[in-house]
Amino acid sequence: MKIAVIGATGTLGRAVFAEFQPRHEVIEVGATRGAQRVDLMNIDSIHALFASIGHVDAIVAAAGRVHFGELTQMTPEQFRIGLDDKLMGQVNLVLAAQRYVNDGGSFTLTSGIVGEEPIQYGASAAAVNGAIEGFVRGAAIEMPRGLRINVVSPTMLEEAREAFGPYFRGFEAAPGARVALAYSRSVEGLETGRVYKVHR
Amino acid sequence: MKIAVIGATGTLGRAVFAEFQPRHEVIEVGATRGAQRVDLMNIDSIHALFASIGHVDAIVAAAGRVHFGELTQMTPEQFRIGLDDKLMGQVNLVLAAQRYVNDGGSFTLTSGIVGEEPIQYGASAAAVNGAIEGFVRGAAIEMPRGLRINVVSPTMLEEAREAFGPYFRGFEAAPGARVALAYSRSVEGLETGRVYKVHR
Repeated sequence: MKIAVIGATGTLGRAVFAEFQPRHEVIEVGATRGAQRVDLMNIDSIHALFASIGHVDAIVAAAGRVHFGELTQMTPEQFRIGLDDKLMGQVNLVLAAQRYVNDGGSFTLTSGIVGEEPIQYGASAAAVNGAIEGFVRGAAIEMPRGLRINVVSPTMLEEAREAFGPYFRGFEAAPGARVALAYSRSVEGLETGRVYKVHR
Repeated sequence: MKIAVIGATGTLGRAVFAEFQPRHEVIEVGATRGAQRVDLMNIDSIHALFASIGHVDAIVAAAGRVHFGELTQMTPEQFRIGLDDKLMGQVNLVLAAQRYVNDGGSFTLTSGIVGEEPIQYGASAAAVNGAIEGFVRGAAIEMPRGLRINVVSPTMLEEAREAFGPYFRGFEAAPGARVALAYSRSVEGLETGRVYKVHR
């Protein structure tokens, strides 16, 4: 298969890339690094990416920022960071890139454990992750040409413990390689509309 | 209790108003009708509402628009209608109005069955409803002064069958009076972080 991994230079993206690389043609796409670049906030940039790389069999998105902060102090502008970036980035990708995915191909998006399991400072992240999962369930039944769409909800990655550990005290981390299996299951399986949870 | 019902002039809001009215001081708040007015897209308007009505024991939100349309034709701008209106309207309300709710008081928001149960044209609605439910789970653990926050996920209302029936073929509708009980349970109970589903 020809698989585009968006966010391939991040902690999670590198693990997903490593999972697919031995047996597929994987295209590494980053925001500011990587063999190919895309700005998911910009529809023209998404079209330019596929004009460059051509049609693919699968698109994996492992990219997106959210704001973590105290609920009582959070401004609507801070709350919107994750809606504009992690949510609309992935939604824009699905809306704009459908036409570049071969019949029966797939999208695999990324949500996260916050949303189902709340953490302090995580109210915006919880909304964003809930939105992505709702979107995937809603979009799955309308995808044309047998296209599929799933989402992976990872817990904190072992590799990200240094950065995120203080937010996730008491949570079991998962190695990136184990989380990457869920992306393989989505891309190389046949299901659609699924939320694959890797919560420990 | 003193309860502000936002969206009180809508189909659902009227049923919620009728449930609370016999035993509470209920303030009817609409966007363009009702005894009081508020524009949830405008933080200043939210502050002005509470400057007018004073502190309350509970705030119920039963308001919000989303765009229904075909996924393959949906633009990011159409997708954002529900994020800006139904999602951010309710989020703005929680962020701005916390200070006007008495200790131990509550917010009760509104999501909807689409999100858990997909329907054609509902990909954006599914994202919005998923976001509201994620937000409520995330926000509940951070609310100050014993404030609580829950969300009601109604199916199509009997009273809205004429408008929404074609979108919800095969779904059982629920009478507004029965959906309103879930709001009573949220406001007059003691739980927080709950999604009360009224799906038939």
